[in-house]
Amino acid sequence: MNATANKTAQVISSEELLKHLQGHRNLTRRTIEAFPEKEFFSHSIGGMRTFAEMTMELLGIAGPGIQEIVSGKSAPLDEHVEHGNSKEKILQLWDEATEQINTLWPQISTERFQENILLFGMYEGTVISSIFYFIDNEIHHRGQGFVYLRSLGVEPPAFYER
Amino acid sequence: MNATANKTAQVISSEELLKHLQGHRNLTRRTIEAFPEKEFFSHSIGGMRTFAEMTMELLGIAGPGIQEIVSGKSAPLDEHVEHGNSKEKILQLWDEATEQINTLWPQISTERFQENILLFGMYEGTVISSIFYFIDNEIHHRGQGFVYLRSLGVEPPAFYER
Repeated sequence: MNATANKTAQVISSEELLKHLQGHRNLTRRTIEAFPEKEFFSHSIGGMRTFAEMTMELLGIAGPGIQEIVSGKSAPLDEHVEHGNSKEKILQLWDEATEQINTLWPQISTERFQENILLFGMYEGTVISSIFYFIDNEIHHRGQGFVYLRSLGVEPPAFYER
Repeated sequence: MNATANKTAQVISSEELLKHLQGHRNLTRRTIEAFPEKEFFSHSIGGMRTFAEMTMELLGIAGPGIQEIVSGKSAPLDEHVEHGNSKEKILQLWDEATEQINTLWPQISTERFQENILLFGMYEGTVISSIFYFIDNEIHHRGQGFVYLRSLGVEPPAFYER
């Protein structure tokens, strides 16, 4: 095997991982859109958070997390941005995070994914384990949002469409 | 950068991806364990499937999917194994799949992750996109299982523990 082959044989490339992350974020965006405005901010099951509160957590993680990975500047996790109970405002914040992530991502070199970091000043891991946490946590809560939607009689978006 | 550096700079290595997959499968196992026996097979919200039915889907995907990736032999997706409404039997099937995946995984070379496949004779993708689908689909349904548990007044396992 030569150097070129070594270079191209990636389990997953950085570009594919970005596409994977943004595909999931796109599906979450459509899940937010599927909620009736009132229930997005009020509906819950078994004492859990509303889907709006879960969404604010997701917004506090992905954009700021990638920013911290790129800049090296740590800031505490912040899940509270003023949204005035407006889904439109939250979707706008979502789209801004999408752009922010697309802009920052190419600044993460392949070598950096295995680097140790302390995200938000408290979560130990590597860059790749942190990014997987962002994705997995989003899938986890969105799955919960799907149950909320079903319990409201609303059809969720198709899971396999990104 | 020399050839060695090229070879070692992986966004995620195959070994790490296996650990990631099995960490998620371990958390799902603890989620199954957390369910009261009766409700595992009967409880549902909003007309959705029981967590037992979702679990049988997961069992139909991960082990058989990795087997197909390794062997190249396609078989239709099968979500129906006789379990006699016994959680113990399903946990036994789960552990067998864990062993099967651990045994088969090292036979997937790094180069193969980007290979195109038609999984279960019907799902187009690459080896890596298929494996991510296994993981993401499991996280998605387990998140739903967490809502079922909360609605039953049962504390789910910690999401961050694998």
